[in-house]
Amino acid sequence: MALSKKPVTGMRDILPAEMQVRDYVIGVIKETYAKFGFTSIETPCVEHIENLTNKQGGENEKLIFKILKRGEKLAAALKCGSGQMGKEQDGAQTNDAPRDGAAFAADFDLADGGLRYDLTVPLVRYYSNHTNELPSPFKALQIGNVWRADRPQKGRYRQFMQCDIDILGEPTNLAEIELILATTTTLGKLGFRGFQIRINDRRILKAMAAYSGFPEDTYDQVFIILDKMDKIGADGVASELVESGFSKESAERYMALFEGLKQAPDGIAYLTETLGGFMESEVAGNLTEIIAGVGATKCSDFELVFDPTLVRGMSYYTGTIFEIAMPELGISCGGGGRYDKMVGKFTGNDVPACGFSIGFERIILILTEKGFTVPNLKKEAYLIEKGLPTERLCEVIAQAQKQRESGVQVLVARMNKNKKFQKEQLAEQGYTQIQEFYTNPLQ
Amino acid sequence: MALSKKPVTGMRDILPAEMQVRDYVIGVIKETYAKFGFTSIETPCVEHIENLTNKQGGENEKLIFKILKRGEKLAAALKCGSGQMGKEQDGAQTNDAPRDGAAFAADFDLADGGLRYDLTVPLVRYYSNHTNELPSPFKALQIGNVWRADRPQKGRYRQFMQCDIDILGEPTNLAEIELILATTTTLGKLGFRGFQIRINDRRILKAMAAYSGFPEDTYDQVFIILDKMDKIGADGVASELVESGFSKESAERYMALFEGLKQAPDGIAYLTETLGGFMESEVAGNLTEIIAGVGATKCSDFELVFDPTLVRGMSYYTGTIFEIAMPELGISCGGGGRYDKMVGKFTGNDVPACGFSIGFERIILILTEKGFTVPNLKKEAYLIEKGLPTERLCEVIAQAQKQRESGVQVLVARMNKNKKFQKEQLAEQGYTQIQEFYTNPLQ
Repeated sequence: MALSKKPVTGMRDILPAEMQVRDYVIGVIKETYAKFGFTSIETPCVEHIENLTNKQGGENEKLIFKILKRGEKLAAALKCGSGQMGKEQDGAQTNDAPRDGAAFAADFDLADGGLRYDLTVPLVRYYSNHTNELPSPFKALQIGNVWRADRPQKGRYRQFMQCDIDILGEPTNLAEIELILATTTTLGKLGFRGFQIRINDRRILKAMAAYSGFPEDTYDQVFIILDKMDKIGADGVASELVESGFSKESAERYMALFEGLKQAPDGIAYLTETLGGFMESEVAGNLTEIIAGVGATKCSDFELVFDPTLVRGMSYYTGTIFEIAMPELGISCGGGGRYDKMVGKFTGNDVPACGFSIGFERIILILTEKGFTVPNLKKEAYLIEKGLPTERLCEVIAQAQKQRESGVQVLVARMNKNKKFQKEQLAEQGYTQIQEFYTNPLQ
Repeated sequence: MALSKKPVTGMRDILPAEMQVRDYVIGVIKETYAKFGFTSIETPCVEHIENLTNKQGGENEKLIFKILKRGEKLAAALKCGSGQMGKEQDGAQTNDAPRDGAAFAADFDLADGGLRYDLTVPLVRYYSNHTNELPSPFKALQIGNVWRADRPQKGRYRQFMQCDIDILGEPTNLAEIELILATTTTLGKLGFRGFQIRINDRRILKAMAAYSGFPEDTYDQVFIILDKMDKIGADGVASELVESGFSKESAERYMALFEGLKQAPDGIAYLTETLGGFMESEVAGNLTEIIAGVGATKCSDFELVFDPTLVRGMSYYTGTIFEIAMPELGISCGGGGRYDKMVGKFTGNDVPACGFSIGFERIILILTEKGFTVPNLKKEAYLIEKGLPTERLCEVIAQAQKQRESGVQVLVARMNKNKKFQKEQLAEQGYTQIQEFYTNPLQ
């Protein structure tokens, strides 16, 4: 057989039962965010290769599916690359070591586009391109597939859906408050209870590192180690800091802060007092107001907690950062933060921006695993004997159409030879009422 | 500026106003087809390159966006290609003519995947892969983007949405009847009136060609000329047939059939009588029953008409073919037909299949051009003065949340310096009720 039945490596077909849940969840997301004034947008799945490889995407930039140039441009790239290779080979006759894949491919400039690996880069490009056509602040909801050429593994796919919510042009913490409220309301509507929104601020992370005496150019390395607190505990973090070459004194001073936080009734107040001049003055008030604003709705589905160990990987965050945690399941279901400097990379002028990315695939997984079913229409099936005369067929079809107009889901199908099995299958699919139509009505 | 604000060539960003219409149309499509027992499915946007280049896709196979291999596989392909080139160059020293782009690129086997150019190939692969998990007959609805590296032009984009509806495993014309009814019901719900479904059968096209004496291996060429009837008329078709080297006698005999059809009150009956043994016996009865079955619903939004000049390009069609025509606009909005031989290419066993592809982008274009607006929620905007104390902010947010729960769309935004302009903009976006909140309530 010439053709391949399986999907390409690492990607998957979605079967009807899961699609029902996905369609339902997308419906709830669109409806709920709309109530908060978010509008849907769509960007192309293909982006300029330059936009995808500008160092905003961190590790994801290594996982891009690249789109081959076409026609003359492709031929030119291949000629250029093979010329390059020839030259190098001439000049390196004594070096017999085989060149590795990446070095070999780098000679050729073969791709002009790539599949987007997230929705943030396309959103910022979109906003930069259409600023004058969009309201300010602009509240955007984008649901779409993204692609990453990750090593395939259980539950992680190379094509998956992301759901991003962003507010651009809002400098104050109203953005954070609205994003957290809209997102927690959505999760509540999907039946989630008892989850947490953890919140922190990159500026607090930096102030704590500065106070502890870490050199400024090592902050990111310190944060990567701190991010393991959940897994290796405070002692683990302390040892790893020292093993990585940081001074014992800084590590101890740093860990003492976390120890102090444990005892403090109000973590933000404690840090404000302890960090003193290391922390920008508005940071604490800003966080406190976000927590109060969200708390004002007195929703009991979730709690919003200050978590000074929250890091979030992307280096583009400039202020608040947050994460959705499901403590029962021990996982995170999305997160986000403020990234006030990214629009400037496209336009030269910074625009305040803050966003949330919901872990859509994880939510679908949780819902399907707990046996979530979508509320269904009433379902009827009409089975038609083979060879039913045209006039009778017409009557059945007219009846089906009438029922559909009144809101019933009607399946019209030919009767199979094994009618019993067919009816069992239909019952499984939720067709509780099954009518049969014969040439001889007395049958 | 390093980053590009524009979308990649030929693709486009979709702005909020159009997205509203798209989301609405997708909602109507999903809801209506569900009433007919169709279930949503999703396939990856990336397909195996072999599946996309197996000659099922006609001209579209020239327009594939190919995905570059990665890592060692890419390096191997490049080494292999450049070795190939070296060899050829050695053996062709006397030939100084530059090689063209395609020939050059053909030396390299650089792609292992491609972006799908339609939804039919992925559907058939999906069905072949999951037959045992799917009901029979299987009624599938697939809405998704497809990509074609066409020359960009007004209204034609390189990424566009398709909407396909297919029934697999149903050999009888119940498939055609249900597909036409579901599709016309959907179009009716979207406000379309007075459109036509034109129907024909590849077997009628073949019988007419055989009767006229065209050689069997030239049928496709004859049909391509016949397909121009709309544009060049019967005389034009006759001359082009002769100019293309067909016998004058065949051309005349062929055109006499169309002349006869014009006079005949019942085209199908006329052809049955005239074509005699050239036409398979069940073809006429099959078509007549489809027309009667669809007519049984007495829906006046559209008419179903037999059109013996309807060709449809794809060579994979094996029986009935149909097209949605909007006579007022002089355009087609989709079409489809029966393709009973395609599943066999994947599994070795043929499965009857019949489908419709709705021209989603064209429908959106028609709706937006005629100023269609989506029925909206009630919309309120709350404008907050900068520096409003936290307690007051909390009250406003709690009030907004309450209104949202009762079904109102509420936008909470900071008051701009130019409040008058801000309020005008909000009014344009449909926020008819705007409340303002000040630190000093008397302001």
